[in-house]
Amino acid sequence: MVTPLGDRVLVKRSEAEEKTAGGIVLPDTAKEKPKQGEVIAVGSGKMLDSGERVAPSVKKGDKVLFTNYAGNEVQIGGEEYLLMREDDILAVVNK
Amino acid sequence: MVTPLGDRVLVKRSEAEEKTAGGIVLPDTAKEKPKQGEVIAVGSGKMLDSGERVAPSVKKGDKVLFTNYAGNEVQIGGEEYLLMREDDILAVVNK
Amino acid sequence: MVTPLGDRVLVKRSEAEEKTAGGIVLPDTAKEKPKQGEVIAVGSGKMLDSGERVAPSVKKGDKVLFTNYAGNEVQIGGEEYLLMREDDILAVVNK
Amino acid sequence: MVTPLGDRVLVKRSEAEEKTAGGIVLPDTAKEKPKQGEVIAVGSGKMLDSGERVAPSVKKGDKVLFTNYAGNEVQIGGEEYLLMREDDILAVVNK
Amino acid sequence: MVTPLGDRVLVKRSEAEEKTAGGIVLPDTAKEKPKQGEVIAVGSGKMLDSGERVAPSVKKGDKVLFTNYAGNEVQIGGEEYLLMREDDILAVVNK
Amino acid sequence: MVTPLGDRVLVKRSEAEEKTAGGIVLPDTAKEKPKQGEVIAVGSGKMLDSGERVAPSVKKGDKVLFTNYAGNEVQIGGEEYLLMREDDILAVVNK
Amino acid sequence: MVTPLGDRVLVKRSEAEEKTAGGIVLPDTAKEKPKQGEVIAVGSGKMLDSGERVAPSVKKGDKVLFTNYAGNEVQIGGEEYLLMREDDILAVVNK
Repeated sequence: MVTPLGDRVLVKRSEAEEKTAGGIVLPDTAKEKPKQGEVIAVGSGKMLDSGERVAPSVKKGDKVLFTNYAGNEVQIGGEEYLLMREDDILAVVNK
Repeated sequence: MVTPLGDRVLVKRSEAEEKTAGGIVLPDTAKEKPKQGEVIAVGSGKMLDSGERVAPSVKKGDKVLFTNYAGNEVQIGGEEYLLMREDDILAVVNK
Repeated sequence: MVTPLGDRVLVKRSEAEEKTAGGIVLPDTAKEKPKQGEVIAVGSGKMLDSGERVAPSVKKGDKVLFTNYAGNEVQIGGEEYLLMREDDILAVVNK
Repeated sequence: MVTPLGDRVLVKRSEAEEKTAGGIVLPDTAKEKPKQGEVIAVGSGKMLDSGERVAPSVKKGDKVLFTNYAGNEVQIGGEEYLLMREDDILAVVNK
Repeated sequence: MVTPLGDRVLVKRSEAEEKTAGGIVLPDTAKEKPKQGEVIAVGSGKMLDSGERVAPSVKKGDKVLFTNYAGNEVQIGGEEYLLMREDDILAVVNK
Repeated sequence: MVTPLGDRVLVKRSEAEEKTAGGIVLPDTAKEKPKQGEVIAVGSGKMLDSGERVAPSVKKGDKVLFTNYAGNEVQIGGEEYLLMREDDILAVVNK
Repeated sequence: MVTPLGDRVLVKRSEAEEKTAGGIVLPDTAKEKPKQGEVIAVGSGKMLDSGERVAPSVKKGDKVLFTNYAGNEVQIGGEEYLLMREDDILAVVNK
């Protein structure tokens, strides 16, 4: 597995994105539609001007919504993941 | 439901936007016309350079005006919502 | 009525803009000509990096000049208003 | 008359710009040629990140040089003025 | 060898990028696919506004993922290296 | 004469730019070639975020090199000058 | 000779860039290939927001790698030099 750097977050995109367990449906036609996935790993967080780091607002296991263009794709063990910045994550889906 | 991150706000767009109860009418023809909606959920607020967060200026239940291009669309339970930044909200409609 | 957020200001554009009581005439032909109006409501002011807010330099009732492209249009009670940032206001017309 | 806001400055452009009393001649052909004028009114000055304002470096009566594209035009009492930012002023002409 | 300056990092791109020991496979078709490599040398780190430097989050020997367009190519002793900014590194591959 | 504002510097471009006394020759063909001139007057210096000003690194009489596109042209007493920002000055020519 | 201002550095580009003593070869075909040279003079260093200057990370005599588009060309005593910002320097070549 990999450890994201700084404010990067490793996300596994949800398989069936059209209709999730929590009832969240993402529109097909929206030009910039958010995507859903699960947080797999987080970095040490964003660095402030003071040099301190702020712990990420998401944690391993969180179901999250993110923008369509968020992140870079990587494949680990044959599966596809996304490495995105914490700021690309729009919301956490409540259980 | 979802919990917005940081300065994100979850907004339910008003059904009948042409003429609201409060008498606010939004022009059809304006190139960048604001939209009206209701705040459903807010995040922890914008992060300052110091790492502190500032509580959002809007709260659940607020009727708000926002710019036409604000936010990303999501569907929850078959209904469409917007996830926008607090700064995209122009004003709160007084009751 | 509405309450502007942060550094937003609600302005009612002057009806007869060509020639005002104070004698200020705005040229027709200028490519980026300022507009005149009256402040109807102000927000809590711009937020500093420290999280503090600075009270707006304009107040309800002020006659103001603003740039041609300032703000978003809204209609309240059948009348058209502008929601602009305080920084889009160029000057206050003295009484 | 008007009171400029913040770092805005009200300037009356010099009538005869080709040749001034101080002997400053501005070239016709320069693509981005500075203009000359007189400061009529200043605002409270630029706001720092701390919220404090810095008194403007120019004052009423100063003859100033500014860039060609500086400011917005307004007409007061039938005469044309410019509302520009203090940073658009290049230099003060010495008496 | 060379010593990177500031937040620069010297990286040796992995020979066989399609399939690594750790099982990470990078997709061929992704428009902006990350690359994998090994950190050869790091600089003194990014400078904060205060003038202090923050030690890099990666160190010599780290296997890292980086964006496709990261860095400048140099050849040392006949081999090709990349000089990139620490912020271009997305994640560290765990051993 | 004029007094530059803030970080502005008044420079008199050297007449014979192809070959100077100090032996500095500026190439004709370079796309963005620096120019040489003499500092005639300086402003009070660049303002920091704190509101303090930093004394300019150049002074009256300094021979300086600057970028090709630096500054705005003005004519004083029939001679052409440049009003540029201190940051457009690349180096001081040693005597 | 000249004294660079602020974070500017005067660099003499290496004559034989294809193959250096240290074995560093720079590829011909790279679209944005770094260049090699020797530091001839440095400025007082980059200014922080506080007004303090940070001593440059390179010194006279350092062999350095820099990006292809770094700096402005000047000729001193018939030889060609580059005036670049310290941030355009990628790495120091170890002796």
